[in-house]
This record gives sequence, C-alpha cells and structure tokens, in this order.
Amino acid sequence: MITLRKKVYGCAPAHTIYLGPGRKEFHPKKPRPGIEHYIFEAGRASVAQVSNPDAIDQGVIGNFMASRFNRQGHLAAFLPAVHESLHHKPCTRVEGACGSGGLAVSTAVNAILADLADAVLVIGVEVQNTVKAMYGADILAGAGHYSRERKNGHAFFFPNCFSIRAGAYYDKYGRERTRRAMAEWYALAIENARRNPNAQEHHNRDPNPRATGMTEPNAKAFLEHISVFDCSKVTDGASALILASEEGLKKLGVPLDRSARIVGVGHCEGDLTKDPADLTRQDTTAASAAAALGMAGISASELGLLETHDCFTISGLLSLEAVGLAEPGKAPDYVLDGRTRIDGECPTNATGGLIGFGHPTGCTGVRQVADLIQQLTGRAGDCQVKFPTGKPYAMSMNMGGNDKTVLSFVMAAD
Amino acid sequence: MITLRKKVYGCAPAHTIYLGPGRKEFHPKKPRPGIEHYIFEAGRASVAQVSNPDAIDQGVIGNFMASRFNRQGHLAAFLPAVHESLHHKPCTRVEGACGSGGLAVSTAVNAILADLADAVLVIGVEVQNTVKAMYGADILAGAGHYSRERKNGHAFFFPNCFSIRAGAYYDKYGRERTRRAMAEWYALAIENARRNPNAQEHHNRDPNPRATGMTEPNAKAFLEHISVFDCSKVTDGASALILASEEGLKKLGVPLDRSARIVGVGHCEGDLTKDPADLTRQDTTAASAAAALGMAGISASELGLLETHDCFTISGLLSLEAVGLAEPGKAPDYVLDGRTRIDGECPTNATGGLIGFGHPTGCTGVRQVADLIQQLTGRAGDCQVKFPTGKPYAMSMNMGGNDKTVLSFVMAAD
Repeated sequence: MITLRKKVYGCAPAHTIYLGPGRKEFHPKKPRPGIEHYIFEAGRASVAQVSNPDAIDQGVIGNFMASRFNRQGHLAAFLPAVHESLHHKPCTRVEGACGSGGLAVSTAVNAILADLADAVLVIGVEVQNTVKAMYGADILAGAGHYSRERKNGHAFFFPNCFSIRAGAYYDKYGRERTRRAMAEWYALAIENARRNPNAQEHHNRDPNPRATGMTEPNAKAFLEHISVFDCSKVTDGASALILASEEGLKKLGVPLDRSARIVGVGHCEGDLTKDPADLTRQDTTAASAAAALGMAGISASELGLLETHDCFTISGLLSLEAVGLAEPGKAPDYVLDGRTRIDGECPTNATGGLIGFGHPTGCTGVRQVADLIQQLTGRAGDCQVKFPTGKPYAMSMNMGGNDKTVLSFVMAAD
Repeated sequence: MITLRKKVYGCAPAHTIYLGPGRKEFHPKKPRPGIEHYIFEAGRASVAQVSNPDAIDQGVIGNFMASRFNRQGHLAAFLPAVHESLHHKPCTRVEGACGSGGLAVSTAVNAILADLADAVLVIGVEVQNTVKAMYGADILAGAGHYSRERKNGHAFFFPNCFSIRAGAYYDKYGRERTRRAMAEWYALAIENARRNPNAQEHHNRDPNPRATGMTEPNAKAFLEHISVFDCSKVTDGASALILASEEGLKKLGVPLDRSARIVGVGHCEGDLTKDPADLTRQDTTAASAAAALGMAGISASELGLLETHDCFTISGLLSLEAVGLAEPGKAPDYVLDGRTRIDGECPTNATGGLIGFGHPTGCTGVRQVADLIQQLTGRAGDCQVKFPTGKPYAMSMNMGGNDKTVLSFVMAAD
C-alpha cells in the first residue's frame, strides 16, 4: 500500500466566474478576457488569502488545449506574473486532457512530498469560447487517439463516445429509468448551480429542469442516445488553491482550520490505443477511486461529499458505480432515490458539477479540489454541505478522455 | 540550500533517429511515421534495457506542441501502450515549451523523491515536420507571450528573438569575433553530429562547415543578425530513459555501473509577460545553472561535459556565460580557443547539440540527460568524451522560450 510520507494540506481556494453560454455576462460576439486574465484573477485571489505569499516555493498549472484555443503554450511562464514570489522558482504545466487539473494537484503533492517545496500554488485554466462549438469539439478530440479514432468519427467526438456508452447502458440496464435518472442528474446540477454565484448555470431560470432533462435524443440533429442537456457546456474559467506541508501552512500564515488535508490520492492511466473493454464501466475511474479510498483507509460509504466528473450525465452515473456508491446498473436508483442531493446520503457535485458549475476542461480537477477545501472549511456559502456524523470525508474524481487519465483525491479536515 | 532527499539514478538511455531535412531517410513529400511511432520506439528501446520492466511504477512524457503539429493531446495515455507495466499507473505529460523534456526529467525526479515511485519511464517527443516551416514557426511562437509579442512580430518569431539578441551582443562585444565563434559553434555541431548515427546532420558532407557558418545574415531573405546556419532545424524525434531510486535500480535489474546519478537539479521560471532585462544575458538560465551546480556542490570548472541548449548559435554562446564557463563577452574566445571541442577543456554538445543532433523541441531535455547517462557509463560510441581527472561531472541545460523555463541537471557516475 502506497502512503503519503508527510501531511499535505490544501488552502486558499478561489474561482473566477465560469463564463459561457447561459451566463448573463456572456455574449458570443463581444470581446472577452484572454487566458492570462483568468490565470491572474484566480491565482491572485488565492495568493491574497495567505499572510505571507513569499512562502510560495513552486507553481503548477493545469491546462488542456490553450495551444489551440488561445495559440498559447508555455503557461507556467505566466506564474511568476501571478506573484513575484515565483520569480525563478520551479513552475510546471501539466496536461492530461480533461484530467489536467487533477494532474496539477498531484504534481504539486509530489513536490511537497519530495521535500522540494513547502507551499505550491496550483492553478487550473481553460478558455475555450474562442472558437465555434463544432471546431472546439474537434480540438477536444485530441484527448482521444486522434489518428485512429477521429478520422471516421463523429464531428462531436466526445459527446458521441458517451452517447455510445449511454446506449450500451440502456441496452443492459433499461432505457426509461436511466433516462429519468439522467434528467434528475441534470436538474440537480442546475438547482445546485443556482446557489453558486460563480456557476455558468447560475442564471438558469428554467421552471422545470427535470422536463428539460428528459428532452429526447435526436440522432439527426445531434446524437442517438443523449441530448444537449446531457452534456456540459463550453466554459471559460480558472480555479486556484495552494497546497502546503504543515511547515508550509505556518510559513504562509494559514491557520489549520482554514485548510483541509489530502489523505488519499489515486492517479491511474488507461491505454489510449484501446477501446473500452466494457462500455458500461469506467475501469480506470474505478481503479483511481479504489487507490484514493485505499490510501485514505476508508470505504465509499464514509464519503460525506463527492465532486465527480459529469462531463455528461451518463459519465456522472457511471462514476457513482466506479467509486462503489452504487452496484453496476444501480446508479439510476441511487440518483432517483435522492441520495446525491445536497441533503442526501452522499451529496454529489454540490456546486453544480461540470454541467452546472461549468467545465473549463483542463481546469476542472483544480476546481473540484478547491471546492472540497471550501466545503471542509465551512466556506461554501449557499452550497455548503453538512457532513453527516461518521462521514467526514470528501472526494473528487477528475477524468481525462474516455476513462483514460483519472485523478481522485480524498480530503478531510485535520 | 535545497538537497535531494535520496539518491536518484538515470539508466536505459535511448534515442530514435532524429529525422528531418538533412537526413537521407527524410523526404518532405513522403509519408512519415506518426507521433505514436516515436513514443513507442524510444520508450520500448529504453524498457528493453532493463531485466524487469514490471518494476516501472510511473511514466512521464515531455512534449511541446503535439496538439498542433499532430492534433494529438493526452500523450501520457500512450505510455501504457509502451509497456503494460504502466497500465493504470500514474502517467503525466508536462510542457514547458522547448524546456518540456527537462521538465519531464524533473517531474520524474520528484515522484521518486516523494517515495511514490522507485522507477519512472521518461520520454520526450516532438514530431514537427507535419507543417511547413513558416507555419511551424507560428506554432512555436506559442512559447512566447502570443497575444502581446506575436501580433506585430516576425513570421519566424523565435529566430528573430535570437537575431535581436545576437545584434545586441555584436554591439556590446564586437561583431567579427562573435560571428567567427558562431561559425565555429556551427562547425563543431556538424563535426560531432557526423560521429552520431542518430543525428539529423549525420549525413552532412559539407567540406567546409566553418565557411558555411560564416554565411552573411540577410535581413530581406531571413533575419538581420543570423543566417539559417545559426539555427537548429525542424526535427522529428524521441528520446527516453528510466529514472530510479537505489531500490528501483535493484528491482529493474540494472547494475550501478550502467547508471549515472543526478546530483544537482536547477529549475527556474522567468516571467513570460516581461522582455529580457539585458539582451546579452540569459538570466533564468544563469539562475538554473547556479541552482544545479550549487546543489551538486561543484563549480563550473569541474564539468567534464556540457550538453547545452543551442537552439541558435548565439544561445549556445550565451549559455556558456550563463553557466559560468566564460565571463560576459568572453564566450566567443572560449569557443575559438577550442575549449568546447570534444577533446577540449569542457566538451560541449558532444553528440551534436540542437544544431547537429537535431531539436525535436519538447524532447530535447530528455535527449540531453540520456546523453549524459551514455557518456558517464562509457556507451557514447564515437561521441564518447574522456572525462579529465578532477572533472567527473556532466551537466545539461534545457531552455524553454526566450530564457523562460530552464532546467539544468548535474550528473556523475556514483
């Protein structure tokens, strides 16, 4: 069993507004801030929460496709401009498709465990409303095995991958109840996002999101097994946090009760050259969740909060089974029984998740861990979850590609 | 002073042929292998050098712009296809422009120091002959601050950045001797590459490379202060190696004398939003070299080999001053006095460097460290350097952007 050789804490969580279709501030034809703006806004909002920013030893930034959405690589070299403490310090950009944010967190954990840093600034960012959705979908297809899968594939590559998974799930476990659970997933995402002022769907006023979620898939207009309401939207956003050792927290001037501890990490990679063995399972996600829970020494039943990767409603359902909250085929029941509600057995995606909060692809894993810190320190505002007795743990799961790069983190108040 | 908390060794160095204009095998209009081919060829050639590949715990891959050159992101998900030992293990892609390879090495060092891995496969790769040079130059401009610097900049963005640096150096220290030193740098690169069967310039038969190197810059045809012979070419290639703890070497079945130890790491980031303070200095490079030498507890005069980042002849010269081998303004003398020759005071770029071996951008830092391992274990073939008494150390310096992300490693036989 792999363990963490020293204590690692997260603090100073920050988010920009998650901008895109649905937000009042968003206008598709008006100029919008560049990617640097997002990096600086989230990063500086995080740094502003510590008394002594000079204690920051390193920086890590997670991003998926700024090289194409913004023609900008080399994002780590923006970190010394976030705060001068990072001038000539080690800074690293990591990428693992939509798992890039989780990868940024794990890379920062490693730097602390390596005794090379006591405090690491972690930023996730993606600004992808720079191109039309159809072109964006082709860019994001770079998370698949492009030369093998994309050539004859669907224009909306990833939505189609998960439409196929949804179809397989309907065939194996029944369509009607699954569709209702997907609609419920959508509705909870919107309802939670309405309580979150930073969320892309914060302004959503749909009087009946459950009915909207039941919109019939239309193969001619979009995809065979899912509708647009089963998909996360296109989002511009950044999130940030600081990871620190015990010594690092002291140097930063952050009290222990403003931080949460990382007690489990699961980082698993699947083979991009292979198709999923079973379309109704997310095997790499399951391995990652098992690794994180195992390191924490807990079972899924002890989770008082889950932030999971619902790039699509079906991946939300599959992730509940992967983490072990529901048996195979039973995730629809778990959702329809209300267990993922903010006051349910295991509150899930309390700030809206990828569908409600938004999904700036390479940022999401940082957003999730920042959310866990906010929740575990009681600073989640109207999205605050009450951790039930005996369930003091929160977990995030962040997935890149079609179940290929998966990062899970278990956290708790120390 | 930061130190490495445990011993980290490099072993199993491997390179593909570095393909591009100049190699006999290269034809601009014939189909060439895709990026996966390079990853698999280098990675498997490395893995084949260890007795027990199942001991590999993690993988790291460095790449700059596959997202644009190859429309392929998510490269870490190819690592489980290199060898099945990496199935569901942690795999990470890092990017720091042309410093991506060095970043991959440092990220792997961290995983070992963190006690999360005993052996890490490290691959660097770039396949960039997929587009015309002019478009490629625009892609690589993503290593600069694109929205600020590129808009009104030169089509050949980075060559122009270093042409400007060369002009400033001529003005301050004299043009004639500097141009002669740049030509000598070019000639040594070609001569060393001819001894290296994997090098892009291996087939170069120019009878007088010193004269070629003196080609006058032509501002109308290319740039004001440098000619095409002052520039590294466009290269497709991959290199690989394995980093391991002492325990890891045993588990891999690699004897100590087939490995070299990393005794110094310097990783420094400069601010992408700022222009160089002094065009005749590479400050971030100097900081990185000082950090690596400091951690190793040695001075530059103890280096028996330097693999440095000569993306341009002028950056080669500037790096000699940054590392402290020559005083400011004295690098031309250092080179013209023969001190960088393979039998000189500090053999430099013994396998050809970026100009001779080739410069697959995001791969180069891995190539350099793989070269150090080959040299320190006496397996560098016709490029083998004899380490003089009292100079048992080898150093690599890998630079991303215009002196922004710099990784230096000092290594020695243990």
